[in-house]
Amino acid sequence: MPGDLYLAADIGGTKILAVAATARGKILARHYVATAAAQGPEAVVRRLIQALRQVGNSSPGIPPSAAGIGIAVAGLINSEEGMVISSPNLPGWKDMPLKERLERELGLETYLINDANAAALGEHRFGAGQGVKNLIFITVSTGIGGGIILGGKLYSGATGMAGEVGHMTISVDGPPCHCGNWGCLESLASGWAVAREARQAILGGAETSLRARGKLESITAEMVFQAAEKGDALAAEIIQKAASYLGVGLASLVNLFNPNLIIIGGGLSKMGERLFAPAQRVMMERAFAPPAQAVRVVPAALGGDAGVLGAVAYAAGQRARLSGKEARR
Amino acid sequence: MPGDLYLAADIGGTKILAVAATARGKILARHYVATAAAQGPEAVVRRLIQALRQVGNSSPGIPPSAAGIGIAVAGLINSEEGMVISSPNLPGWKDMPLKERLERELGLETYLINDANAAALGEHRFGAGQGVKNLIFITVSTGIGGGIILGGKLYSGATGMAGEVGHMTISVDGPPCHCGNWGCLESLASGWAVAREARQAILGGAETSLRARGKLESITAEMVFQAAEKGDALAAEIIQKAASYLGVGLASLVNLFNPNLIIIGGGLSKMGERLFAPAQRVMMERAFAPPAQAVRVVPAALGGDAGVLGAVAYAAGQRARLSGKEARR
Repeated sequence: MPGDLYLAADIGGTKILAVAATARGKILARHYVATAAAQGPEAVVRRLIQALRQVGNSSPGIPPSAAGIGIAVAGLINSEEGMVISSPNLPGWKDMPLKERLERELGLETYLINDANAAALGEHRFGAGQGVKNLIFITVSTGIGGGIILGGKLYSGATGMAGEVGHMTISVDGPPCHCGNWGCLESLASGWAVAREARQAILGGAETSLRARGKLESITAEMVFQAAEKGDALAAEIIQKAASYLGVGLASLVNLFNPNLIIIGGGLSKMGERLFAPAQRVMMERAFAPPAQAVRVVPAALGGDAGVLGAVAYAAGQRARLSGKEARR
Repeated sequence: MPGDLYLAADIGGTKILAVAATARGKILARHYVATAAAQGPEAVVRRLIQALRQVGNSSPGIPPSAAGIGIAVAGLINSEEGMVISSPNLPGWKDMPLKERLERELGLETYLINDANAAALGEHRFGAGQGVKNLIFITVSTGIGGGIILGGKLYSGATGMAGEVGHMTISVDGPPCHCGNWGCLESLASGWAVAREARQAILGGAETSLRARGKLESITAEMVFQAAEKGDALAAEIIQKAASYLGVGLASLVNLFNPNLIIIGGGLSKMGERLFAPAQRVMMERAFAPPAQAVRVVPAALGGDAGVLGAVAYAAGQRARLSGKEARR
């Protein structure tokens, strides 16, 4: 069925993942290219178009018959207008009319969606949240993003920007956040927060194997996790603290949304129980008991494909919605 | 039309408001009785039944023809099972099967809803939120409650307990909250938080006209507001601080929900600009700019009737849903 094929891409800070996939989430072709965000918006867009052409051509017959394109991008997206308003990963992108550009160059209807909303949709359609009514997806990696599925559908708010779970304030006088606020969940429980804590502890003279890892600025959350796994007490404490802050955020989400499910994905979710156990303990301590008992907290199932598969689901859904509207005319 | 008439009550900590009203929100009769919660659950239920009979009888023909009963109660409500799980205002109420009891005694289908959810529904159907797609209703009084309307419908979560906006953690090491958590929005911006701050300041030796208001324990948020209006600097500062904390909570809600509208009701909303101005300023400072610019923050329109009118709307809605289901069988 020609209407069943989509091209999609997830534009990350370091790489672009492009796929050709069916509306049911089966990936037929995939291609990675470096984002090279530092080269500026035009260079990124050209690489994106090339990557989409590549996956289109690698599966014969896809470009003429593909039904549309779905694009997942980190940052503030206006899905209605198909604009990237701004992106933390893409310097120089401001009110970029990406939908229009891709439609002009590739001749296919294009739909833009925030990458965390896309991942939520991907996990709901094809991953850990299949068939669940109300779920919150949280991606804990360098930053913290999220997506919200309510009543079985993506909830994206008045202007498509809902779901910024990383930017709930959990510590009113907390550290500055990249978003301009203070004490956001992201500023205390993200990859960059973990790295910052490690650096500060080293500067403060703490004893830790992390000192041997070279330059202070090059310390990452991944290194802190590895050190903790090898028995470094300071590293373990830093991760435990970040995980506890995550639990504070989970408790707020449980009290606000009373969800059936919380899915945790992103790079830091690979820390497994080191992240999940303290987070769930704190969530149970802090949230109202009945909604806390009603929610399951599980790891994401789709890994790095969640965003791009969500972009496929989003494009397919928007297309069905629009053709439904036309049919009713 | 007989199906158009409802009995409803809003059970508060100090009084019960019972009404007979049309499904369109027109109140035909109203009656207040003291809740007398300290006399225990059975006494409260008897007073409630009496109040419902009273409004039923005061408008001739209502009891035989009323279509159902809607009850709004503060606390954790299981709407599906018609149980009051627990209520901060009603000591001794635990897993109370109020729906069953009222149906047995009054012979009318009865629907239970959390009072803040009811107020959200009331404001959406008949008040400040008419026709709005996505709105958050916040009631700031002795405590802080809330209700969420998304896609034009009440969002109540997996088990009917969503919307506890007062119990987002905004200060991870903040003061203990009545819910068992620490640093909840309620513990910093509610009526009881304002009163606590005033008491602590007086104990700490602060200069304020509030000293002259009698016993420390009897100081209320209302007194602090009145003192501020008369130029008391300490009182003004306490309110300004609470309002700023409210703004921190609004910013989190804006980032999470990207709502079209936030409605603020409850006793403290009568403070007007003293509450709204700092809250909105802090919200604009802390939230992402696009969703902050997309939201309007307005005072509630229905005052003390929001909950009881929401209970009417809820009962009417549930009844329509159930009879729709039956019709489809």
